[in-house]
Amino acid sequence: MYSIQDWRRTHYSKEVVAEMNEQEVVLMGWVHSIRALGKLAFVILRDREGTIQLVVPKQKVSEETFEIAKKLGKEDVVAVKGKVVASEKAPNGFEIIPIEIRVLTKSNAPLPLDPAEKVPADIDTRLDHRFLDIRRPKIQALFKIRAEMLKSVRNTFNDNGFIEVNTPKLVASATEGGTELFPISYFEKEAFLGQSPQLYKQMMMAGGFDRVFEIAQIFRAEEHNTRRHLNEAVSIDMEMSFSDEYDAMDILEKVVYNSYKDIAENRADEIETLGINFEVPDKKFTKLTYSEAVDIANGKGVELEWGEDLSRAAEKAVGDEMGGLYFITEWPTITRPFYTMPYEKDNKICKAFDLMYKELEITSGAQRVHKYDLLVENISKMGMNPEGFGTYLEAFEYGMPPHAGFGLGADRFAMILGQEENIRECVLFPRDRQRLTP
Amino acid sequence: MYSIQDWRRTHYSKEVVAEMNEQEVVLMGWVHSIRALGKLAFVILRDREGTIQLVVPKQKVSEETFEIAKKLGKEDVVAVKGKVVASEKAPNGFEIIPIEIRVLTKSNAPLPLDPAEKVPADIDTRLDHRFLDIRRPKIQALFKIRAEMLKSVRNTFNDNGFIEVNTPKLVASATEGGTELFPISYFEKEAFLGQSPQLYKQMMMAGGFDRVFEIAQIFRAEEHNTRRHLNEAVSIDMEMSFSDEYDAMDILEKVVYNSYKDIAENRADEIETLGINFEVPDKKFTKLTYSEAVDIANGKGVELEWGEDLSRAAEKAVGDEMGGLYFITEWPTITRPFYTMPYEKDNKICKAFDLMYKELEITSGAQRVHKYDLLVENISKMGMNPEGFGTYLEAFEYGMPPHAGFGLGADRFAMILGQEENIRECVLFPRDRQRLTP
Repeated sequence: MYSIQDWRRTHYSKEVVAEMNEQEVVLMGWVHSIRALGKLAFVILRDREGTIQLVVPKQKVSEETFEIAKKLGKEDVVAVKGKVVASEKAPNGFEIIPIEIRVLTKSNAPLPLDPAEKVPADIDTRLDHRFLDIRRPKIQALFKIRAEMLKSVRNTFNDNGFIEVNTPKLVASATEGGTELFPISYFEKEAFLGQSPQLYKQMMMAGGFDRVFEIAQIFRAEEHNTRRHLNEAVSIDMEMSFSDEYDAMDILEKVVYNSYKDIAENRADEIETLGINFEVPDKKFTKLTYSEAVDIANGKGVELEWGEDLSRAAEKAVGDEMGGLYFITEWPTITRPFYTMPYEKDNKICKAFDLMYKELEITSGAQRVHKYDLLVENISKMGMNPEGFGTYLEAFEYGMPPHAGFGLGADRFAMILGQEENIRECVLFPRDRQRLTP
Repeated sequence: MYSIQDWRRTHYSKEVVAEMNEQEVVLMGWVHSIRALGKLAFVILRDREGTIQLVVPKQKVSEETFEIAKKLGKEDVVAVKGKVVASEKAPNGFEIIPIEIRVLTKSNAPLPLDPAEKVPADIDTRLDHRFLDIRRPKIQALFKIRAEMLKSVRNTFNDNGFIEVNTPKLVASATEGGTELFPISYFEKEAFLGQSPQLYKQMMMAGGFDRVFEIAQIFRAEEHNTRRHLNEAVSIDMEMSFSDEYDAMDILEKVVYNSYKDIAENRADEIETLGINFEVPDKKFTKLTYSEAVDIANGKGVELEWGEDLSRAAEKAVGDEMGGLYFITEWPTITRPFYTMPYEKDNKICKAFDLMYKELEITSGAQRVHKYDLLVENISKMGMNPEGFGTYLEAFEYGMPPHAGFGLGADRFAMILGQEENIRECVLFPRDRQRLTP
C-alpha cells in the first residue's frame, strides 16, 4: 500500500475535459464501481466533485497496472496517473487511460451501506454509518449548499457593518426561562449549556459594538421527537443598536435573499444533483400580523383564541394559505420572552416577529426592551427573580441603546434550501433524545 | 425618554468630514464627556468608530436643546440631529452644532467602571463589568481585529477549496484521551462536551469531503491557572485528504499570513488605537525539528531529554532564540496523540508539527494515521479500548484516504495579533477555573 508521497491530485473529476487530450493528470478518489471483462476493465472513480471513467485495456497499459485494476474493489482509495484521450464514443468526449494506479487504502467488504446504491437505507442506518452515507453525491450536495449558505450569511453581515463575536456556551444560570437546559459539572460548580446567546448579544449592545453576529451551537434539553427539532442546533444570531424590529427584518430579508441568490449562482451543479426546483425569492417578504394569522387559521376551521401561541394546526393552516417565506408580526406580548418590547400605544402587543417558510418557523426576532424598569417588571411578572440576572441587568443601568435582533435556525434554513422534510438530513451528526452517536 | 422612532443614524463619527459643511447629520452614541460652561457646552459623543465633538452655544441653539445638553451625564445614550460647520479652529476642521438632542437612555452614576478613564481597572473588575470595559476604544479595537482575523481565515479556507462543516459538541464518550472532559446529563445518559472536533473531521475525510474546516467552541476541564489557557476556547480546525503534514503547513502559512495582511489593510485605525507595531510576517515560516529545538534548549542550560515534551522553560529558551512565527516538526511519536502518523523509516518520530509564536504554541497539527491496523495498535498501546471508538474506527475500514490537518487556537492567535499577554484580553467572556460569569 502506498503513502501519498510525491503524488498530488492535479484535477478533480469534473475539471477534466476533452480539450485536455493527451495531457497527463493525477486523479484521487474512491472506486465507485468496477467492471472487469477479459482484456478490458472499466473503473468509475469518485471524488468530491463527481465521477470519472477510467478505461483499462490490457494491450495499452503495463501488466502491473492491468492486474491492479482488475483486483480493485468497491470503495478502495486510489491515486491514478493517467492520460486524457479524446474519444467521440466516450460519454463526455474523453476517457482516461491509466499509466499507473496506486492503491492507497483497501476497503473491507461487504459495505454496511453502499454509496453507489440508488435506493438509500433508512435514516437510522444511514446516520449510524454517516461517513459512508455522506459519500453519496446527493448528501454531499446538501452539505455543500449548507456551507454556501453559511458563507453567504456571513458576507451579508460583514457587508452591513456587523462584527463577529464569540459568546460563551458555558453559563452559570438558567436565566432565559421556558426552555430546558442541560446541566454540566463545572469543577465544583453547577453550570449549564447556553440555550441561546441572547443575553450576551444584548450586553454587546450595551458595550457599544453596535451590530454583532454569531453563528454557533445552542443546546436545548427539550424532549421533542419531531422532524424539525434537535437538542443541539446551530443558530445564526444577530443584534443591532439604534434599531427597531423593522430594521432587523430588513437585514433578515437580505440574509435570506442573498443565500438563495449565492446558492443559485455558485451551487447550480448541486441543485441539479438534488433534482429540486430552486427558486430565488423576491427581495421583500409579505408581512402578516398575528391577528391576521389567527383569522386565517379560524377561517380554515382551526380553533385558536387571540393570545394563544400558534398551534401546529394553526401553523399548518396559515402555511397552506401563505406558501413560501413570510413574516408574522405584532404578536401578543404574553406569547414572547420577557426581553421583547411591547408597543407604547398598546402593551398587549409587542414588537416581535417570526419568519416562516410555509408552516415552519425559521427565525424569531424582535425589538428588545432597553429600559431597565420595564425589564425588571417583566422578569418579575414571569415569576423570575431579577437578582438572578447579575451583570445582564446591570448592563441596562448604564446606557443601553434601543436595539433589535433575531435568531435564525441554520439547520432549519438548510432544510428549506435543500427542500428536505427531516432536519436530520441537513445535520452531519444530529443529536436528539435517542441519538448521541456517532 | 425617546424611542428610536423615525430617526436613523446617517453617519458614524469618523465618517463626518469638514467637506460636509452645512450638511445635516444624525449621530447616535454615548456621552463620552461633557463640559458645560456658562453659555457654552462641549459634548464628546462616542460611537463604535470613534468620538466626535458637539459644540452647543446658547445663542445658536434652541432653549430646549441647550437645557438638554447641559444636563447630559456621562454614558447617557443620545441621538443628535445637527449641522456640520467647517471651522479652522476645531480639531478636525469642523464642529457639530446640534439642532435637536434626544436622550434615549439615561445612565446611572457613578459608573462601576468609566470607559473614559485612561488608567484601566484590574482585569477582574473589568471582566465583571465587561459591557462597560468593551466601550473603551482599545478593547473594541482588539475585538475588531479578532473579527477581521476570523473573516480572513474563512476566506483563505474558502479560496483553497475547504467546505465548512458543523460537528457536534455533545459527545457520547471520552475518546481522545489525555484531556479532561466536562460531563453533562443528557436525558438518561451521560455525555461529554467535545474537547476537539478531531474524530469528526477525520470521519469527514472518510466521507469524501476532501477538505473541511470548522470554527467552533472546544471545552477542556483542565485545572490550569495561566495567562494562556481557558476552559472554553474557540478552535480553528481543518482537515485535508490526499495530503501530508507539509500540505497542512502550507495551508496554515496562508491562513496566518493572510490574517496579518488583511488586518494591516483593513484595520489600520484599530492598530493605531492599540499603539502597536504591527508587522506582516514573511509568507513562509522557518521549520525547526524537535531535535534542533532540544539542542537549542540544552544549549541555553535547560535540561531536557530527547523524547520528553517541551517544558515551559524549553519553550521559553527556543522562543527567545527563534522569535516570531516558526514551526517545530518531526516530534517524538510518544509525545503526540494516537492518531498521529509515524515516519515509515523511523517510527519513533512522527509527522506532527506545532506552529509557535515565540514561546507560545498556537497550532498543533500532523499527518494522521489512515491505516486501520496501525490505529488499533496505537489505541491499544495507549491503554485504551478500541471497542470504545465505534463508528470512528469503522470509518478506517471502508476506504480512508491519507489525510492531515491542524487545530489553530483562535483566542491565542487573537492574543498574538493584538500583542496581548493575557488570553482573557481577547475573549469577551472568558471561562476559567474561577470564572463562569457574566
